[in-house]
Amino acid sequence: MNTHKLLPLYRGELVENVIPFWETHSIDRECGGFFTCLDRDGGVYSTDKYMWLQGRAVYMWSQLHRHVDASRGWLEHAKQGAAFLRAHGRDRNTGRVFFSLDRQSRPLHIQRKIYSEVFYVLAMCEMFASTGQAEFLDEAQEVFWLTYDLWQHPEKLGRPQLAGTPRLCTLADPMVFLSMIEALRPATGDSRYDDIAVQMQATTLRHIRPDRRLVLENVTPEGAELDTPKGRLLSPGHAIEMGWFLLHHALHTNDESLTRQSLDIIEWSFERGWDEEFGGLFYFLDADGRPPTQLEWSMKLWWPATEALYATLLAWKISGPDRGQKFLAMHERMRQWSWQHFRDETHGEWFGYLDRQGRPTHTLKGGEWKGFFHLPRALLLMTMLLEKR
Amino acid sequence: MNTHKLLPLYRGELVENVIPFWETHSIDRECGGFFTCLDRDGGVYSTDKYMWLQGRAVYMWSQLHRHVDASRGWLEHAKQGAAFLRAHGRDRNTGRVFFSLDRQSRPLHIQRKIYSEVFYVLAMCEMFASTGQAEFLDEAQEVFWLTYDLWQHPEKLGRPQLAGTPRLCTLADPMVFLSMIEALRPATGDSRYDDIAVQMQATTLRHIRPDRRLVLENVTPEGAELDTPKGRLLSPGHAIEMGWFLLHHALHTNDESLTRQSLDIIEWSFERGWDEEFGGLFYFLDADGRPPTQLEWSMKLWWPATEALYATLLAWKISGPDRGQKFLAMHERMRQWSWQHFRDETHGEWFGYLDRQGRPTHTLKGGEWKGFFHLPRALLLMTMLLEKR
Repeated sequence: MNTHKLLPLYRGELVENVIPFWETHSIDRECGGFFTCLDRDGGVYSTDKYMWLQGRAVYMWSQLHRHVDASRGWLEHAKQGAAFLRAHGRDRNTGRVFFSLDRQSRPLHIQRKIYSEVFYVLAMCEMFASTGQAEFLDEAQEVFWLTYDLWQHPEKLGRPQLAGTPRLCTLADPMVFLSMIEALRPATGDSRYDDIAVQMQATTLRHIRPDRRLVLENVTPEGAELDTPKGRLLSPGHAIEMGWFLLHHALHTNDESLTRQSLDIIEWSFERGWDEEFGGLFYFLDADGRPPTQLEWSMKLWWPATEALYATLLAWKISGPDRGQKFLAMHERMRQWSWQHFRDETHGEWFGYLDRQGRPTHTLKGGEWKGFFHLPRALLLMTMLLEKR
Repeated sequence: MNTHKLLPLYRGELVENVIPFWETHSIDRECGGFFTCLDRDGGVYSTDKYMWLQGRAVYMWSQLHRHVDASRGWLEHAKQGAAFLRAHGRDRNTGRVFFSLDRQSRPLHIQRKIYSEVFYVLAMCEMFASTGQAEFLDEAQEVFWLTYDLWQHPEKLGRPQLAGTPRLCTLADPMVFLSMIEALRPATGDSRYDDIAVQMQATTLRHIRPDRRLVLENVTPEGAELDTPKGRLLSPGHAIEMGWFLLHHALHTNDESLTRQSLDIIEWSFERGWDEEFGGLFYFLDADGRPPTQLEWSMKLWWPATEALYATLLAWKISGPDRGQKFLAMHERMRQWSWQHFRDETHGEWFGYLDRQGRPTHTLKGGEWKGFFHLPRALLLMTMLLEKR
């Protein structure tokens, strides 16, 4: 497809096919917050609220208000979601953010992971950006430091640390810290965020194996590789997402070496993750080419596709004309496959879960993990990138 | 297939295709216990030890010694496994059983679930049955009462009980208690086990919905249904396994009503779980016909197939000639499909994980969850059943 056609395509997809689905079906106008357990046609199949997805939805609605159209009332959706999060999202004793609530806002579950906190921070930062109200920034910072403390002292999350438990570092952790700092840094003059960004950049790069052109999901704190299924695990879509996180960081700091590394990461991970037989990106792979143990390893999920769409488009714009053509070809491959397989022309939005051959295994549009986030974020980022030309 | 051919078929499969694979590849002759992370050809892809599967392997080797052939040294495998479990399997402070150990027997992980304990109890009971040594029975009983206490006081497992956390009862719990009691009862004169069996039978039957011909995986303590994905979850293979557990219990207590109910459960669950399009049993379904949220719901796993093989064969033998033909037809359908899709003629054993169409998604023969248990147990039970004719 001619690149001039991409801007109207992505903007149209965002505004006409994605936003209306969520605006119509996901807002709980009675109890606050957002439904995410939505059937193919938007019917609510569970009224439980998932905090990862509440924070992400607040973030998205506010971003869309700021960057696409401030006249559509989208900030109101973000505001009600933020109020819901602040009223019900945190444990009053510990300050931690719950994983899920029922419709009466009673907590159902709390994870031994930091990601509910992470998306809470992103939501609060974004609300500060769109409203200028200091209370949002204060709460973002408070939860950020709580999260940083939990990351440094994982025993506080409640998982028993046993004699043989390997202190594995997961790629997601430095990535989410970089994303929180990308949101916090412009709002504060606090240089501690820059220091942590440097630390997280170094932590991230410990996962990279340039000689083998791959990114390991889990390494020891020293960056060593474990010869177990967990130690050999690859998640190409996740590595591609990390690629563009790092690219943003490299552009911000004018770091040419990091820019090159980020482009490499995107290139390796796309090439390794692409299924030459049926198309699309594998969900998980094994660094040594064994079958991963995850039952869903060969499935095609929507979010690796949307991460790859934005990452390859950004890489095309950043890299020179020669290398750029390679990224543009990847982008076009991903776009065609996504439009053919993920898009639901009947009811809007994209399917989330396809089998290896590209057939939907689930017709649902949202659930515990899929909400109003990866697809609109990628479409928004691509729209903004293409408008800049 | 003529039923006379089933006995040599199943006995041959057990002795020639399944036992040799595990005897050759799974025994850790250096550090004790059993490897279960085995590639297609038996190569070890991780040396971590999983306690569910250690207990189950001890149980199987001892059963095979007792019921198939006492001259093959199989009891030695069970003995070394039991010694390994007793030396390294339990937390010295709490008495709980770990979930996994590394090769140096350092604990890696402990679950907030009772099943590591359950398979430890089954292993110890079985060792008492094969050796007559009281120390095994003593330890089985000690861990049984610990497990019963954890089941009655789930907060002791360490999972936070939050205001909205529904106290959902999962079908697995009363099932595993019935299976532990089936092993403990003949060894002790303790009538408390009979009382708990009555309690567990009643608990199990709360999951049954005769009007809709289904068995719910999760219900409230009062037996009510929750209208959430978890509350609507069906696992046909699991319900079929429960069917034969209950059938054993019904035969033991001469309970004709429970016998009829157990046969119903097997019939409903097989009919509902069978994939009319591609064959095999779905892993998960939703009681209302929605797609379940589990990514692997449409996959075909080995263990629902092996449970269905034994359950339908037992149901055929127990039920009268009319109903029996129906169960025999189910059995034959399951057998043909299993032999076509699960069996590995090249390297022995069965594949564990197939996609909906019946193609292996994983070539591994064992892992964290698949070990020396469901397949040999079903083959042994069928062999013993067919020998009784």
